[in-house]
Amino acid sequence: MHEEGKKWHAHALFARRFEIVIQVLIIVSIVMFCIETLPDLDPGIRAVFGIVETVIVLVFSVEYVARVILSKNRWGYVFSFFGLVDLLAILPFYLSLGIDLRSVRIFRLFRLFRALKLLRYSRAANRFSRAFVIVREELILFALATGMMLFLSAVGIYYFENEAQPEAFVSVFHSLWWAVTTLTTVGYGDMYPVTVGGRIFSFFVLMLGLGIVAVPAGLVSSALSKARFEEELEEERQQQER
Amino acid sequence: MHEEGKKWHAHALFARRFEIVIQVLIIVSIVMFCIETLPDLDPGIRAVFGIVETVIVLVFSVEYVARVILSKNRWGYVFSFFGLVDLLAILPFYLSLGIDLRSVRIFRLFRLFRALKLLRYSRAANRFSRAFVIVREELILFALATGMMLFLSAVGIYYFENEAQPEAFVSVFHSLWWAVTTLTTVGYGDMYPVTVGGRIFSFFVLMLGLGIVAVPAGLVSSALSKARFEEELEEERQQQER
Amino acid sequence: MHEEGKKWHAHALFARRFEIVIQVLIIVSIVMFCIETLPDLDPGIRAVFGIVETVIVLVFSVEYVARVILSKNRWGYVFSFFGLVDLLAILPFYLSLGIDLRSVRIFRLFRLFRALKLLRYSRAANRFSRAFVIVREELILFALATGMMLFLSAVGIYYFENEAQPEAFVSVFHSLWWAVTTLTTVGYGDMYPVTVGGRIFSFFVLMLGLGIVAVPAGLVSSALSKARFEEELEEERQQQER
Amino acid sequence: MHEEGKKWHAHALFARRFEIVIQVLIIVSIVMFCIETLPDLDPGIRAVFGIVETVIVLVFSVEYVARVILSKNRWGYVFSFFGLVDLLAILPFYLSLGIDLRSVRIFRLFRLFRALKLLRYSRAANRFSRAFVIVREELILFALATGMMLFLSAVGIYYFENEAQPEAFVSVFHSLWWAVTTLTTVGYGDMYPVTVGGRIFSFFVLMLGLGIVAVPAGLVSSALSKARFEEELEEERQQQER
Repeated sequence: MHEEGKKWHAHALFARRFEIVIQVLIIVSIVMFCIETLPDLDPGIRAVFGIVETVIVLVFSVEYVARVILSKNRWGYVFSFFGLVDLLAILPFYLSLGIDLRSVRIFRLFRLFRALKLLRYSRAANRFSRAFVIVREELILFALATGMMLFLSAVGIYYFENEAQPEAFVSVFHSLWWAVTTLTTVGYGDMYPVTVGGRIFSFFVLMLGLGIVAVPAGLVSSALSKARFEEELEEERQQQER
Repeated sequence: MHEEGKKWHAHALFARRFEIVIQVLIIVSIVMFCIETLPDLDPGIRAVFGIVETVIVLVFSVEYVARVILSKNRWGYVFSFFGLVDLLAILPFYLSLGIDLRSVRIFRLFRLFRALKLLRYSRAANRFSRAFVIVREELILFALATGMMLFLSAVGIYYFENEAQPEAFVSVFHSLWWAVTTLTTVGYGDMYPVTVGGRIFSFFVLMLGLGIVAVPAGLVSSALSKARFEEELEEERQQQER
Repeated sequence: MHEEGKKWHAHALFARRFEIVIQVLIIVSIVMFCIETLPDLDPGIRAVFGIVETVIVLVFSVEYVARVILSKNRWGYVFSFFGLVDLLAILPFYLSLGIDLRSVRIFRLFRLFRALKLLRYSRAANRFSRAFVIVREELILFALATGMMLFLSAVGIYYFENEAQPEAFVSVFHSLWWAVTTLTTVGYGDMYPVTVGGRIFSFFVLMLGLGIVAVPAGLVSSALSKARFEEELEEERQQQER
Repeated sequence: MHEEGKKWHAHALFARRFEIVIQVLIIVSIVMFCIETLPDLDPGIRAVFGIVETVIVLVFSVEYVARVILSKNRWGYVFSFFGLVDLLAILPFYLSLGIDLRSVRIFRLFRLFRALKLLRYSRAANRFSRAFVIVREELILFALATGMMLFLSAVGIYYFENEAQPEAFVSVFHSLWWAVTTLTTVGYGDMYPVTVGGRIFSFFVLMLGLGIVAVPAGLVSSALSKARFEEELEEERQQQER
């Protein structure tokens, strides 16, 4: 019993250390990825980054193969969300070796899935998903209402502003961008109404629309409180059963 | 019994398919409406759109007539919210046939009511309206408070900024636009105070006003939680009665 | 009994009609006040407005004198909030008769108190004040925290941006304006950090500060729910007692 | 007993007066600090400020020494949060006496810790910290989610906008600034997408991201309500025990 406990402890310690190493490598590769986008980067640094990148991809590849071999349901893992993320985190590297780098650079976007790997190791994400299940219906409803609101706002502002600012409010599609930046209250200032009608319309759109855009955050917030409350209830029940 | 169930099933299936077709047509007509506002649209595409538009309006017209004939209370349907929306979704097409298109183009705005038809088929909108009934009183109160706040902010900033920026803060009406974009935190940047007094005034306005504008979203959010809670209670009651 | 009820009814009807007239006059005077600020206003309209203004002030004066005479505690009324508002709503008119209009124009700001009179007749404002009593302590605390946050943000950004943009971030006072527009997420775009340090600082300021600025709205919202809940409880208690 | 009570009362009165003097001095020094950053300040005022500053630092120094001597656990106080703040509030003054003022000016930032001293004397801050303990876990989770969201948004917009606006969206680091100003809905207008892809991407980023950034405020707000509720429960319990 004592021996087994020790072994288990050693195993857990190794697993934890390995996870920390993987997380550090993920962050290193993300930071490197960001630095590589700097236009005036020294070619020497770029070369060093290439070597580090190769090492990281090799470690990730070994990890991926190990995961596939060790998992009980191999295909299940491969086609699971994190299985695909793990594959996409290393695939662009192998794909970009043979063919022209420029054209497949867009695939490097998938390299970002590496960032999502951070999520995997986080235990606390469960509560998150629980809260989303609670308010899923409301969120879909509000997504629909938001879409409708955005469309109606865009059409309205197009009719009011198109004549006065034909180069800004070109079409309903361009007005949709105004609707998005206004209803989310971002307000870059690249597009704004100048006519009296357009401004009065904007006022009503904002009064109606702010609620539609702002309510989901309140819903998620209350759902998270509810999820925590349910969690506490379950824990109490489990303690009473013992 | 079995035969009747089959018949009912076939009827329900047809009704559902018909609804999906109508919804698709609504979305097609909306997308077409948006594309038509693009300034450099190919005349060929415009011609094709005209034909598709005619077909859609015909389908909607048949649907409208069928609805009027089949409904038990005919005038009740015609003057109901959705009866009017259904009519307004097709009326502009017939009106724009005989007379000049340019002058009645503004009526095409009503064509947007077609978008509202999407709402009709959505069962979940009930909870929405329920929550609004719960917080109706508070929303009216906050609408009044918001209006008062906007007015007072506009007058205040007018006194502070009119002298320094006579071309931006022309009158209280122009200042109202500033008040709207500021209190909703949109902040386009087309109007902003530059005097010390105006900035200190803006600070106090924002501190007092943000709450007034932001609270209704919280109220709607809590009302929706309450509406769902009441729904769950009712469902439990109904299950216990069975 | 029947005669008395009739008399009371007639009295209530007159009181209600009088209130509506007063409210309409308040709104008329407010709209006139706004229109008067338009720079290119026709002198004829301005003359008409002067006459209407005189009539409104006379009605308000009669109302004020009647209120003073009819109230049981005369001085109590005169020095009550609404007594002062009623006085300030008419005082600027009499003051501006004898002396130069330009110099006392600033006093016309007080004419806005007329807008506050609208509040008087609104029964529902009680719940408002009740909710504010519930969260008064928290609101004061958050006001302090907001002030501290604004100050620290202003000093920080001053150190980061003063050298790079000496004409924008002139002093800590100018930086305070940046802090106000940023933490309330208005973001006019008249002042924004350009240095790497200033941007990273802004990020941390926003992450910490958004909560401080946004939480009070949530508190007021929950306090309003609580106030309504208490109201409902009281009503139920009163109904059970009957 | 009576004599003792009087003594205690006199002591408490002195302690309270002393605290008020210290708070006034803190505010005076903060205001002076702000005024000193004004570029065109009169040298005479600057000289007066120097003298007042010296007096304030002396009072704070005496207070600090008194606190160290009078506290039961001296080192405990010195290395406590407020002990360090008290020291940092006076240290820059002594450090800047001997050496060049310009180079150590950056250390004056620490002088801001004086502002934090205001927090010390505020009793009500307890509820604050209580609420933060309740939602600590959720806040960390959302901080992680916000970080991930910001990174993914920055990379996405970089790919969409870098080619169209190479001088604005220079690298992922520059795009991160866009992500920060957009997801917090500040929207200065110094950086915004112009391509169709970038705008559609921004729309999805905002729809997903607003919740992530806005939810923590709701969580803190509900945690504060909970903290107050627990406080009320405790007070009731204590009253029943008496």
